[in-house]
Amino acid sequence: MEQVLKNIRVLDFSRVFAAPDATQTLGDLGAEVVKIENPKGGDDCRYLGITSEALDELGGPSPSFRAFNRNKKSICIDLATTAGQEVARSLALKCDVMVNNFRPGTMQRFGLDYETLSAQNPGLVYCDFTAYGSKGDLAPIGANDLALQAHSGLMSITGEEDGDPVRAGSAIIDLHASLAIVSGVLAALLHRTKTGRGQHVETSLLMSSAHLMSYFYQDYWLTGHIHRPMGTANHLSVPNQAFPATDGHVIIIAPSDEMWRRCAHALDAEQLDRPEFAKASDRLRLRKSLVPIIAGITSGFTKQELHNRLSAAKVNVSIVHDISEAARHEQLEAIGGIFHHHNGSTTRNYVATPFSMSETPGEMRSGPPELGLDTDDVMRNFGYEPEEIEKLRSQGAFGRNEQTVGS
Amino acid sequence: MEQVLKNIRVLDFSRVFAAPDATQTLGDLGAEVVKIENPKGGDDCRYLGITSEALDELGGPSPSFRAFNRNKKSICIDLATTAGQEVARSLALKCDVMVNNFRPGTMQRFGLDYETLSAQNPGLVYCDFTAYGSKGDLAPIGANDLALQAHSGLMSITGEEDGDPVRAGSAIIDLHASLAIVSGVLAALLHRTKTGRGQHVETSLLMSSAHLMSYFYQDYWLTGHIHRPMGTANHLSVPNQAFPATDGHVIIIAPSDEMWRRCAHALDAEQLDRPEFAKASDRLRLRKSLVPIIAGITSGFTKQELHNRLSAAKVNVSIVHDISEAARHEQLEAIGGIFHHHNGSTTRNYVATPFSMSETPGEMRSGPPELGLDTDDVMRNFGYEPEEIEKLRSQGAFGRNEQTVGS
Repeated sequence: MEQVLKNIRVLDFSRVFAAPDATQTLGDLGAEVVKIENPKGGDDCRYLGITSEALDELGGPSPSFRAFNRNKKSICIDLATTAGQEVARSLALKCDVMVNNFRPGTMQRFGLDYETLSAQNPGLVYCDFTAYGSKGDLAPIGANDLALQAHSGLMSITGEEDGDPVRAGSAIIDLHASLAIVSGVLAALLHRTKTGRGQHVETSLLMSSAHLMSYFYQDYWLTGHIHRPMGTANHLSVPNQAFPATDGHVIIIAPSDEMWRRCAHALDAEQLDRPEFAKASDRLRLRKSLVPIIAGITSGFTKQELHNRLSAAKVNVSIVHDISEAARHEQLEAIGGIFHHHNGSTTRNYVATPFSMSETPGEMRSGPPELGLDTDDVMRNFGYEPEEIEKLRSQGAFGRNEQTVGS
Repeated sequence: MEQVLKNIRVLDFSRVFAAPDATQTLGDLGAEVVKIENPKGGDDCRYLGITSEALDELGGPSPSFRAFNRNKKSICIDLATTAGQEVARSLALKCDVMVNNFRPGTMQRFGLDYETLSAQNPGLVYCDFTAYGSKGDLAPIGANDLALQAHSGLMSITGEEDGDPVRAGSAIIDLHASLAIVSGVLAALLHRTKTGRGQHVETSLLMSSAHLMSYFYQDYWLTGHIHRPMGTANHLSVPNQAFPATDGHVIIIAPSDEMWRRCAHALDAEQLDRPEFAKASDRLRLRKSLVPIIAGITSGFTKQELHNRLSAAKVNVSIVHDISEAARHEQLEAIGGIFHHHNGSTTRNYVATPFSMSETPGEMRSGPPELGLDTDDVMRNFGYEPEEIEKLRSQGAFGRNEQTVGS
C-alpha cells in the first residue's frame, strides 16, 4: 500500500528537537523531507549533549540528532547569501510543506515567509514553530524546553513536597510540540485535498506546554486552586505513587476500594485490610499514616517480587526503571515500537513512529543524513541542470569552501 | 471557510484523559463527536481530582472533565446489554472515526472491534488506545500516566541529584498520547480521501512515553550511557537551570560563549566574566563551583529584576511560575491560546487547540456536555424513529432507570 505522504515534499529549515522530530514523523509516513542546513556545521543538534571525544568514537552525529533525523536528505544552503536565499525560495515553490523554527521575523528577512511564498505557491502548507508564539511581549525572548517547563508552571508542581522546583528529566514540551506540528500539518494537507489550497500553521513551546497543563489551568480558573509538588504522588487517590523495594522503587496504584482490598491482601492483609483504610476517601484523608505503613511492607521485597505479587492480584503496578532497563524492555519491541535499521553489517535501533497504522504504517528508509551529502541530488531532483548547480555553488549558495561529500 | 473535519462523525468510547483530549481536538477541527458514556455516572473523569463538596459548588463536572470534553455530545449506552451493544454497532456503521481506550479484548466482547466493524463499514478509521499496547506480556496490565513515567525511565531522570525519583507533575504521557491519536487519525483520514478505505490506528501510553524518551534510549543504545536526575539542570551546558531569587526562582540559559559573556555582565561582571569561565567546555567542567557563584548573585534580586536585566541583555531567561501565574500570564492570551466560551451570563476559559491554522482554525462551539443529555437527539440524527428509540429504551440500551435530562 502506498504510504499516506508519498509524493509530498517537505522543506525543513528546523533545528534541534521539536520541529526536526515532527518532520521525521512526516518522513516516516512517506514524505520526501529535505533538511536545509547551514554549511558551517549544520544543525547544532549534531553535536549536542556529547563530548567531542565520544562523538569521534561514534563516528557520526550525536545520539539526539540520530533520534530526530531519519528519513531525511541533507542539503547545505548559506541563507546569508543572496544566491542561497534564491535557491531556498525556488525549492519552496516546488514543495508541499515547509517547516521552520527560526525566531519570529527571520524568515521574512530571508524572503521565505508565508505571505511571500504562498502568493506564488498557493498550495503550500507552511508551519512556523516558535518559543512563545509570534505575537505578544514574550515573542522575541529566546527559550527552550526548560524555560517553558518553568514558565508553564509544570516545574512548580514537580519535585519533593516542600522542596525546590525540579524539571521533568526529558524535553517533554519540545517533543510534545512535535506532534502538534504533525497534527497541524496533516490537518492542513487534508484541507488541501478538498480545496487545493494550503495555509499557515503555527505552534509554539508555549502552546505545547499549555496543552500539557490544561487541566491545572482549568482547575485554577474554576476554583482558584494552586497545585504544589508531591514527589511521586498525586492528589487523586492513595496509594498512587512510588514505594521503596530492596533494590529500587515500584509504583502502586489502587484507586478503587476493590483494587485496594486486593492490594492489601497481596502485600500484608493484617496491616492493610483494616476498616479505617477500606474507603477511598478515608485513604486520602489518612495519606500521611497509610503511606509509611505500605512503604514499611514494600521495602522487604524486591521490585520484581512486588510486580509479580501485585500484577497477579490485578493491582496496577509498574517498576521505576532506569534508562537501560526501559530501553531494553521487551514490551516496546513486542508492540513494534522499535525500528531496526540495517546499514552494511551494523544494525541500529530507533524509537518508531509514535502510532501504528494497519494499512500505511510509518517506516524507516534511511538513517540520519551526513551534512550536505544530498545537495547535488536534491538540486537535480528539483530540476536544476548541472551547470546551474555549479554556478550557484560559485556564488556561495551552498557555502564558501564547501566540501561536497560523495558527489 | 468550512472546517477541515466538517461532516466527519467520531464515535468516542474513551474515558479519563488521553483519548478524550484527542477527540476534543478532532471536535475543535469541526468533527461531530458523540461521546458514549455508561449510564452509571459516565466518564470517571467527571468526578476526578475534586471533592464532592467542591463539585457541588461548581455545579457540574470536574475541572479535568471540562478540560478534555468541549465540542462533544454525550449519549448514554449500557454496553452490558445486548440492546446497548446493538445500538453502538449501528452507530459505528454510520461513523467515520471510532476511538476507544478499553483494555485489550473488551471491544471484541462487545462485538465492537475493528475486524467486525470494518467488514461492514470499510471506510471506518478505528483507533485503539491502550496502556502497553495490545501485544506482549504487559498488554493485560493496568496502568496510568504515573505507571508509564516509571516504566519509561522518565522518573529515573527526574528529581534532585542523588535524590529519590520524582514524577513530572502533570499527566504528560497521557496528554502527549492525545496528539499521537490525533496524528494517526488525521493521517488515516488523508489516506481515506485517496482510497476510500479506513484503517486500524493504534497507540499507547508506552509508545507515547518512548517518543518522549527517544533521545535517551538512542544515547543508551549507542553509548551505554545511563542518565540520572539533575534537579533543574541538564547535561547540555552551564548555566542551564533554575537559580534562586528573593521571591522564587528564575531559569537562566546561556549556552554560547557570547551569551554567557552578556549574562556575566548583566549579573556581576567582576565575579563572572573571568577567563576560567569563558569557554563552554570549561563552564561544564566547573559546574560545581560556578553554579553556587551565580546563585549567590541571583539571590540578591527579585524574579522580575532578573528577568528584566537578562532579557534586556538577550540572555535566555524565564520565571518559575506557579499555576496561577502561568494560567493568568498574558502571553497565552496574546497568541490566541485561550478560548473564551460564553454560556448565558458566564464566560469560561479553556486552553485552545494546541496549534493554529490560518484558514481552518480550531473552534469552541460547545462546553462539556451533561451526561446523556444528547441521547435522543443523537439517535434521531443517526436515523432512528421515536418509536425505535423508545423500544431500545425499554430494552435497557440507554441504562435501566435512566433519567433522560431535557428531552
